[in-house]
Amino acid sequence: MNFPSKLIEDAVTEISRLPGIGKKTALRLALHLLKQNEAVTEALALALTRMREEIKYCKTCHNISDQEECSICLGHRRDRSLICVVEDIRDVLAIENTNQYTGLYHVLGGVISPIQGVGPDDLKIESLLSRVSEGDVKEVILALSATMEGDTTSFYLSKRLKDFGTKVSTIARGIPVGGELEFTDEVTLGRSILTRINYAQE
Amino acid sequence: MNFPSKLIEDAVTEISRLPGIGKKTALRLALHLLKQNEAVTEALALALTRMREEIKYCKTCHNISDQEECSICLGHRRDRSLICVVEDIRDVLAIENTNQYTGLYHVLGGVISPIQGVGPDDLKIESLLSRVSEGDVKEVILALSATMEGDTTSFYLSKRLKDFGTKVSTIARGIPVGGELEFTDEVTLGRSILTRINYAQE
Repeated sequence: MNFPSKLIEDAVTEISRLPGIGKKTALRLALHLLKQNEAVTEALALALTRMREEIKYCKTCHNISDQEECSICLGHRRDRSLICVVEDIRDVLAIENTNQYTGLYHVLGGVISPIQGVGPDDLKIESLLSRVSEGDVKEVILALSATMEGDTTSFYLSKRLKDFGTKVSTIARGIPVGGELEFTDEVTLGRSILTRINYAQE
Repeated sequence: MNFPSKLIEDAVTEISRLPGIGKKTALRLALHLLKQNEAVTEALALALTRMREEIKYCKTCHNISDQEECSICLGHRRDRSLICVVEDIRDVLAIENTNQYTGLYHVLGGVISPIQGVGPDDLKIESLLSRVSEGDVKEVILALSATMEGDTTSFYLSKRLKDFGTKVSTIARGIPVGGELEFTDEVTLGRSILTRINYAQE
């Protein structure tokens, strides 16, 4: 594309560096900003810069935070004997939105993936072990993706956590709520039969 | 969504103001920026701010430009007897990319749309008339969308341009190149028969 203006060309180039945004979408966004009041662009630019420069990572669980320690780790009502291990910050938000979990988190920052060159040392595993070694933790819940990499990481973590004598659990795999049996893949269905649970009878 | 950080919440709010970007995508983009080097976010914020603050609109054709007059209006090789009237800047880029047009442009800034409260006075129509009245223009090409609003605007412009004695044309409507007859809608097909053109025979 030949742009009539270097300014808009630069903006389009920078916007299209974002994942999932091509040149055409970037141009649409840039022209949208041009149509809006200047304050809109200013607010966007400021929010992005401030976020990138000022954001901190919780020293305990590595969640994003405005202070040294995140609001979840500081929370008075959280169950400090439970740690839920997740891959990244989005998973924390997803679990928080269920309103079903009141324990703490531990953000690994990824999963073990030899193909992408991510080994155990690239993840926040040592700090998890040191949290568990302090002795207050009764259960570690592994809430990683149900992929090859997720399963490998879960397996590695369960091995490393074995010596501490802490209970290690993993979130249930099975048929999603609202899912129909005939459309569920065989692996999920097979596993859901093997890991069947007792039906609560009154 | 409950965000663990005000900084990321602000960023997500601002990003999701952009058209077609919801809260989830905004969060994905914000987390992507956090994973990248700080320079990436800085470059993006700077490009956006500079574009919004420094961009100019060509005093002749209202295209975006870095100077008082755009590179197309200043171009030595452009045919100054042709003006192509378009809705917005994206249309200029689209036509320029065809490499089929060497004339000048006139960016209206929209089309007449009573529903959206856009009347003729909201568009750059007077400056088009004054360009045509200078006498060098031989033909005005109306290249507006094939919608109700586009057609209304074309009709209005052709009426206003009548007195100047300049030739007024509109871009051809018909079956897109590569389009199959059976999948073309009746209106387009009907019009393409009515406005048939002579087959060039050697």
